[in-house]
Amino acid sequence: MKEIKVGLLGCGTVGTGVAKLLMENRDLIRARLGADLRLKYVADIDTKTDRGIRFDEGVFISDGRQVINDPDIDIVVEMIGGETIAKDFILQAIQNGKHVVTANKKLLAAQGNAIIKAAAAKGVDIGFEASVGGCMPIIKTMREALVGNRIQSMVGILNGTCNYILTQITDTGISFEEALAQAQANGFAEADPSLDVDGHDTAHKLAILMALAFGMEINLKDIYLEGITNITPMDIEFAGECGYRIKLLAISKMVGAALEARVHPAMIPVDNMLAHVNQSLNAVTVSGDAVGDILLYGRGAGMLPTASAVISDLVDIARNQLLGVRNRVPMLSYQNENIRPIPVRPIDQISTHYYFRFSAADHPGVLSKIAGVLGDCGISIQSVHQKGRKVKGAVPIVMLTHKAREADVRKALGIISSLEVIKDAPVLIRIEGGEDE
Amino acid sequence: MKEIKVGLLGCGTVGTGVAKLLMENRDLIRARLGADLRLKYVADIDTKTDRGIRFDEGVFISDGRQVINDPDIDIVVEMIGGETIAKDFILQAIQNGKHVVTANKKLLAAQGNAIIKAAAAKGVDIGFEASVGGCMPIIKTMREALVGNRIQSMVGILNGTCNYILTQITDTGISFEEALAQAQANGFAEADPSLDVDGHDTAHKLAILMALAFGMEINLKDIYLEGITNITPMDIEFAGECGYRIKLLAISKMVGAALEARVHPAMIPVDNMLAHVNQSLNAVTVSGDAVGDILLYGRGAGMLPTASAVISDLVDIARNQLLGVRNRVPMLSYQNENIRPIPVRPIDQISTHYYFRFSAADHPGVLSKIAGVLGDCGISIQSVHQKGRKVKGAVPIVMLTHKAREADVRKALGIISSLEVIKDAPVLIRIEGGEDE
Repeated sequence: MKEIKVGLLGCGTVGTGVAKLLMENRDLIRARLGADLRLKYVADIDTKTDRGIRFDEGVFISDGRQVINDPDIDIVVEMIGGETIAKDFILQAIQNGKHVVTANKKLLAAQGNAIIKAAAAKGVDIGFEASVGGCMPIIKTMREALVGNRIQSMVGILNGTCNYILTQITDTGISFEEALAQAQANGFAEADPSLDVDGHDTAHKLAILMALAFGMEINLKDIYLEGITNITPMDIEFAGECGYRIKLLAISKMVGAALEARVHPAMIPVDNMLAHVNQSLNAVTVSGDAVGDILLYGRGAGMLPTASAVISDLVDIARNQLLGVRNRVPMLSYQNENIRPIPVRPIDQISTHYYFRFSAADHPGVLSKIAGVLGDCGISIQSVHQKGRKVKGAVPIVMLTHKAREADVRKALGIISSLEVIKDAPVLIRIEGGEDE
Repeated sequence: MKEIKVGLLGCGTVGTGVAKLLMENRDLIRARLGADLRLKYVADIDTKTDRGIRFDEGVFISDGRQVINDPDIDIVVEMIGGETIAKDFILQAIQNGKHVVTANKKLLAAQGNAIIKAAAAKGVDIGFEASVGGCMPIIKTMREALVGNRIQSMVGILNGTCNYILTQITDTGISFEEALAQAQANGFAEADPSLDVDGHDTAHKLAILMALAFGMEINLKDIYLEGITNITPMDIEFAGECGYRIKLLAISKMVGAALEARVHPAMIPVDNMLAHVNQSLNAVTVSGDAVGDILLYGRGAGMLPTASAVISDLVDIARNQLLGVRNRVPMLSYQNENIRPIPVRPIDQISTHYYFRFSAADHPGVLSKIAGVLGDCGISIQSVHQKGRKVKGAVPIVMLTHKAREADVRKALGIISSLEVIKDAPVLIRIEGGEDE
């Protein structure tokens, strides 16, 4: 039986999952691939930790260079993470003519264009299904299943930590800080959670998906970013009363000849499937001109779900290798000569629906003052909910708007903030995923 | 620029969609494929109907044989439907060395094994992404994305007509007959709806998915089948009160060395994503040993969604053709020598949770009689809901059970039916998609 030889760099959580799956489901993979996907090396500088796997003699080594320099290795799996050593190893593996599979969204979002160019120049493939959405085949779906569609938009819940925290606040009414502490205690958040809760990780994933969806290079820097640290149980409760859930969303839409590209907390109506994606689960809705909306849902992280996506890439490359072909599907969906820059709209220029919460003095005439400013700025109010409860001597006034321009909204909120009757900075949460007017 | 030449057989709704998409998104497909996917022929005996498409001279013809006999054609798209002419054309196209793409689930479920064997013998490919779930890439996901997973089960909503009808009953409380009439009026159901509402169409799709999931030949005959014609607004209402929705499900599970394979209405808890799949939408949850559960959701039918899946197959085959390779992914997921028969459990041998509704005389002691029979048959009751309203002089008693054997349940219901206090045949609805005990 033919063999495709795999070398694994990095044996942390996901690396261990890849090794486990390749070994435990070896017969299954062989029965489907028609060849053996053999794990020749697992390299990690930490040679002490027990991963619960019995490797054959000579498989576990400490030096990654041995993997990328072995002429026998067909595919290198990079599971080191980060942007330094991982990048050096990937580029060297490419130079040595090896295909590469990686889950490193941070590296791809920041330096993926250079890596993909290097791979294209050398004629090798880069598989990165595991970089977005864990086990959900969103990369394969975008690159292959939706090949006949002009993609119009996508909206995703792409960070399990944030979704877990928001679910906890929603279900139990605890504060962000308490929910974060719980997430850390349960292994759903890192000691330094900022990469997750500030939205960076979600933006990395969105940058990768946008490239695949729209035929552009990876563009991280133009994505607008807001994290979930300011989300309060009160706003989640009010959202619920209005028929919405709050989620951290990755959003990109083609509007005319430009893109919206943004990561921020948003309210989603409960009749949208995304509203029911809870705990650490991920999901993404993609809209195309032929399919309408399709949604994928699954575990966005974790040892074996992520390893499953890695195996999918490995088998794809192995199938090509067995047939003597490569670069069968363009790495960024489009043939290189058709990848073009697409301008991204600054956040000021987007239009959407909004939720506002004002903390106002309990005086007659307050509502008409606020409504007057909004009207003057061209913002049309869909509904007003004045809440009975007093919070620190002020009454919360909640308003939902019709579609409005963000620039107008910011102008209006600036004016309203300066009114004497307003006791606290107004809260703004965008509303997504409803029917458009 | 290289060309791959496509011939389309049948220009009904979906055929028209394929032609439209190939023509309208020709530049897009070229930019992604790097070659032209040219529609050389569209053949249909109906040459009169205006499809709203301007074909070039010589493209629209009346004789399908011209398509399959033209040595210039690389891929034949069969959109005729049914099991007679469609089958003859497909087999002849295979004999002529052409790859075939089809959405014909009825034909594949009944005669797919012979068609796939013929294709394998000739070394051509059969693409059938459009046969299950419309635009959802469930076939690609099963064959490629989940290649590293031992599939444990799948549960799907695979028929848009049934889901539309059940959604209407749920939302408005009308009867099955009224909902069916509405579905017919709105174009969601055929004049003869039996293929849909009796569950046959769902079973065809399940037979295809089971083959791909478990490494077996297509086996339609062993799938247990119940349609939705007996579902009443009352049971949907009671289900809702207990936190469930009723859907027509396709279910297959590996239990030990045998499969459960069944299509029937079932109650799903509202915290399961499938409970929120409404109107004519489709979705399927697949459970694998690495991924846990993943779910795909989208339009399961319709002109352009189905055409999108056809284009995905066409581009896949075209990519292979351009590289001079074929049979890259085994048509039934597993290499031919690894496809083996898997026994399917008769319905009597399954175990699941149950909902019963009894119409009982309003006498003291009735409940204890029913509970006694259930207990004697080894069925453990999870909850009892005695409903106040009298229906035709009888009181509805609703019970939910813990996991029970179907054989025991049937025996118990047989005994209970014969009790004098029972006024009507008991209603049985299986419960799926909750946490297992």
